[in-house]
Amino acid sequence: MTAQPMPCMTLAEVNDFLAREFPQIDVGRSMIVQEVGSMSARLRLVASDQNLRPGGTISGPAMFALADVALYVAILAQIGPVALAVTINMNINFLRRPLAGDLIGDCRLLKLGKRLAVGEVSLHLPGDADPVAHAVGSYSIPPR
Amino acid sequence: MTAQPMPCMTLAEVNDFLAREFPQIDVGRSMIVQEVGSMSARLRLVASDQNLRPGGTISGPAMFALADVALYVAILAQIGPVALAVTINMNINFLRRPLAGDLIGDCRLLKLGKRLAVGEVSLHLPGDADPVAHAVGSYSIPPR
Amino acid sequence: MTAQPMPCMTLAEVNDFLAREFPQIDVGRSMIVQEVGSMSARLRLVASDQNLRPGGTISGPAMFALADVALYVAILAQIGPVALAVTINMNINFLRRPLAGDLIGDCRLLKLGKRLAVGEVSLHLPGDADPVAHAVGSYSIPPR
Amino acid sequence: MTAQPMPCMTLAEVNDFLAREFPQIDVGRSMIVQEVGSMSARLRLVASDQNLRPGGTISGPAMFALADVALYVAILAQIGPVALAVTINMNINFLRRPLAGDLIGDCRLLKLGKRLAVGEVSLHLPGDADPVAHAVGSYSIPPR
Repeated sequence: MTAQPMPCMTLAEVNDFLAREFPQIDVGRSMIVQEVGSMSARLRLVASDQNLRPGGTISGPAMFALADVALYVAILAQIGPVALAVTINMNINFLRRPLAGDLIGDCRLLKLGKRLAVGEVSLHLPGDADPVAHAVGSYSIPPR
Repeated sequence: MTAQPMPCMTLAEVNDFLAREFPQIDVGRSMIVQEVGSMSARLRLVASDQNLRPGGTISGPAMFALADVALYVAILAQIGPVALAVTINMNINFLRRPLAGDLIGDCRLLKLGKRLAVGEVSLHLPGDADPVAHAVGSYSIPPR
Repeated sequence: MTAQPMPCMTLAEVNDFLAREFPQIDVGRSMIVQEVGSMSARLRLVASDQNLRPGGTISGPAMFALADVALYVAILAQIGPVALAVTINMNINFLRRPLAGDLIGDCRLLKLGKRLAVGEVSLHLPGDADPVAHAVGSYSIPPR
Repeated sequence: MTAQPMPCMTLAEVNDFLAREFPQIDVGRSMIVQEVGSMSARLRLVASDQNLRPGGTISGPAMFALADVALYVAILAQIGPVALAVTINMNINFLRRPLAGDLIGDCRLLKLGKRLAVGEVSLHLPGDADPVAHAVGSYSIPPR
């Protein structure tokens, strides 16, 4: 396997950038970037009334948002804060009904090209590797 | 082509059911069921601060939610209010950056089986057939 | 809706190009381009021992190939024979078990950008609008 | 994480079953089941004129077939040879142009329910972990 490229942003830099550029994600409160690594990122979605459904399960749109932001963060950490990447495709499978509580999104980039990045995201409860949902998504990367 | 089955719920019945069973969708305010037809449904997502991004475009999670609910409504109208269907897969392509404003979700069911329903949803601005996003999703239908 | 762009290749030109550049598709025998239109194409997959499964149903890979080539042809007719486009994503839902016989692939482009094209393909028996499968796919278009 | 269930079929039993029931897959020649494990399977697609494109790269339909059969084998080994499972959805991302040669399909089941199984498949060259394609698919499992 080819050597994995290292991220060019630290965890603190990613959190600062998101807080500044994407206030709607509410980084540090509703969504927390916990780790960035080589071609990877781990985010935590904090349970709140806004992302829970009656019955206490996390809503589909909240899981979509977690997967989408996790993929964005993994790309951002790798290529730096200049690029304005946009989601072009997201495919998500809902596997189990998640219980109430925080949800972890573990993203692994499958491809990081000049124009296109593809990654998969496993959504699971903290401390439980069995995914409640799994997503694969693509971002278009503008010319740099 | 085989004859299309008619829906067994009226528009008013669908709206009543959603308002009662899914208060989080906020039917009648943030999302409005505008039509139910044979194997089809049309919903309107009302623009609001909650579903807009800086720059005035509708957020990805809000588009996901519109597609997901449009598919649910098309199934519900066809099989009636008893079934508790759950999303198992959603694949969404983001095609154009939507301007601020309401968004229409037009769902057409491709399959309505005993255990599985599949449909496509075109997301477009009112009065503009060019889609800003397009989704295909599946629901699991529990035994009746 | 914005005016639909007209294709810049005729049906004969598309068939000639495919026969010359993609001999493995076996255009004119196993796969026939029947129509090209504005942002659309119709292909026919001819039933043969190679694409049938025991029981007489068309194989999944043959349906994938029909969807993939139909999308490619719709793009090709629109942008001309120079571009070397490659599939980047294909999402396919299998809806009904197809009977033995030819299969039609009707493609409609949802987006034709400078770098990315997205289209949907309905796969159905000749004369029957009910799809046996439905695909949505993306092609990357190289700089021209 | 919950304990992973063990497969109930051996590698030899899987190969025998496929050779008997699915002669069109040509198991042992064009496709070889190399391993079955807990919720997993590894298959090898043997390069041949039939699955190569001009230029020597493996065709999209051949990669689709490898992903589809790898997912089927992972399910089969886990639930036994009685079930007649059918593909309901396959989402495949093409990441890199594969060189000529054999291709490995590594499947990992994400969910194995009573009615639905979901798995992901990484397609890569032997000895190279970087995937050339990645697929996520679903099978419907009939009542047993």
